[in-house]
Amino acid sequence: MSSTEDLDYPQVILQYNSGFLVSKVMFTACELGVFDLLLESGEPLSSDAIAAHLGTSTTGMERLLDACVGLKLLAVELTQEGALYRNTEISNIYLTKSSPKSQYHIMMYYSNTVYLCWRYLADAVREGRNQYERAFGISSKDPFEAMYRSEEEMLKFMAGQNSVWSICGRDVLAAFDLSPFTQIYDLGGGGGALAQECVSLYPNSTVTIYDLPKVVQVAKEQFIPPEERRIAFHEGDFFSDSIPEAELYILSKILHDWDDDKCRQLLAKVHEACKPGGGVLLVESLLNEDKSGPLETQLYSMNMLVQTEGREKTAAEYSKLLEAAGFGEVQVKRTGKLYDAVLGRK
Amino acid sequence: MSSTEDLDYPQVILQYNSGFLVSKVMFTACELGVFDLLLESGEPLSSDAIAAHLGTSTTGMERLLDACVGLKLLAVELTQEGALYRNTEISNIYLTKSSPKSQYHIMMYYSNTVYLCWRYLADAVREGRNQYERAFGISSKDPFEAMYRSEEEMLKFMAGQNSVWSICGRDVLAAFDLSPFTQIYDLGGGGGALAQECVSLYPNSTVTIYDLPKVVQVAKEQFIPPEERRIAFHEGDFFSDSIPEAELYILSKILHDWDDDKCRQLLAKVHEACKPGGGVLLVESLLNEDKSGPLETQLYSMNMLVQTEGREKTAAEYSKLLEAAGFGEVQVKRTGKLYDAVLGRK
Repeated sequence: MSSTEDLDYPQVILQYNSGFLVSKVMFTACELGVFDLLLESGEPLSSDAIAAHLGTSTTGMERLLDACVGLKLLAVELTQEGALYRNTEISNIYLTKSSPKSQYHIMMYYSNTVYLCWRYLADAVREGRNQYERAFGISSKDPFEAMYRSEEEMLKFMAGQNSVWSICGRDVLAAFDLSPFTQIYDLGGGGGALAQECVSLYPNSTVTIYDLPKVVQVAKEQFIPPEERRIAFHEGDFFSDSIPEAELYILSKILHDWDDDKCRQLLAKVHEACKPGGGVLLVESLLNEDKSGPLETQLYSMNMLVQTEGREKTAAEYSKLLEAAGFGEVQVKRTGKLYDAVLGRK
Repeated sequence: MSSTEDLDYPQVILQYNSGFLVSKVMFTACELGVFDLLLESGEPLSSDAIAAHLGTSTTGMERLLDACVGLKLLAVELTQEGALYRNTEISNIYLTKSSPKSQYHIMMYYSNTVYLCWRYLADAVREGRNQYERAFGISSKDPFEAMYRSEEEMLKFMAGQNSVWSICGRDVLAAFDLSPFTQIYDLGGGGGALAQECVSLYPNSTVTIYDLPKVVQVAKEQFIPPEERRIAFHEGDFFSDSIPEAELYILSKILHDWDDDKCRQLLAKVHEACKPGGGVLLVESLLNEDKSGPLETQLYSMNMLVQTEGREKTAAEYSKLLEAAGFGEVQVKRTGKLYDAVLGRK
């Protein structure tokens, strides 16, 4: 659509208007198990059959399926027995729970947590702080206390982050040759999907997931298979507890959660612990220096406002933080996907 | 992006994921008055100046502006005094409050009402009914009682509908030559923007807005200038009260609010009141017969689930309803915009 046509009729604005309808249709079809059922059934199903299987109304289900057809998440065929629906290939890969690249968990986190916080975006901009108090009636002083306010919420968050690494993890770890580093700490490594990608990509490495005790417990019990001997665990709070010596520290989506003071404090501590010749790998979504984008990262920076104390940054800002902490030879690699990589050396 | 690339990396799914972030960024920039300030100022402004003028945090405002740049709703220039922001042309036309084509009011309705109902989309699909009870703690038995639960909510809705007609009204009224009909009733005509388009396009017509007494009061006081003598008012409930004789009845976004029984009941009543040789004009967003789209209409049909008792329909379904009520010579015109037109004759 040319911009002249857009001025006559604001197609792009109508599309932005409907953005939340689109998100919620996809999230809801995932939540209700539409894509799982259609994968399992192995044959196209009618909306009545899907509604009956999933225990929903027929009038609601038919419309949900039709909207998914409009989004190309389902395909429909009109037959003599009525309309029959099936998954598209992209839905089989990304929207079914059983797929290794399933985005189900991050969508549930978006749909049932982030969506609720974003109701208060105008308040967040006015006040310049996160909105846990308005959204959930809980103190917003420590964002992770708020995010992990129940084991269920913590699990949703950890599983959600793991879905992200199933599509972006390999790229950020392959951005630099990390094979010289065999002794690796993943600070705030959560559910451990990135650690698993790391030991798979670098078979000589061992990765220690350093996270809060309750996070480590759940990672051990629910996410990391006990036979995975190249992944270890360290329980602690990396702001208040000591950080052991290692060759490489991965800080994946950590700095974007905190204000610049806390970032400086953490990086100085990491530098002190780091073996000479070692390094630190920042995994973050990088903003362009000229403020032109990427749009996703700009949106995520707003989400950091709504949910944390931090913000997304440019490569130059991360380099400066690394250099201030004593790291050198800073290299930046954009992956073309959501998350990029910045490597600093001691 | 080719579909093979999408299978490697689900760009389209990430875009759907972020849909609600996009909507809320645009809604919030509108709500806080960013576009109004930049229009009035007549020169590009820094984020600090905008934050100071609008009484918001600087950290929140800068990110909001940057996200609007990513959405091409603002343009940014990096100068020696820092980044300066200005409206793009599309924002001047559609996102400022003072523009005749302003979409501000419909966005406020979407942001502060519809967004809240859609939190419960999964419940709506399960139950097959609207979600006023969960979203606002009010009975959902009469959707319009719920929608008009306060004068403020009613005003937001009426102003929102008026914004829609500022971009779609002329097309639906010009879809057929309505000049033979001079005596027109707009059933549920609300804030009257469509009635105003009608008397402007057909200077010999008079349009009577037939709506609930409280709606008519507000339309008179706040929306229709008293010097507009070609617009009259009729207070009533077109389901329970009588409908006066006229040459043409406009039912614009009325049938989509109600179940098929109520649609049949209303059309029969309109047919009875209609002068021989007169007609009825349905203004609705038409679904394709083959369920392929349009996406917007499929999404609106989901919104009808979440907010009303009705649904969007195909041209064939509307034609059938009209014919069952006694109307003939049914003609359908798609406008290429959000709303289409169906004309039936008595």
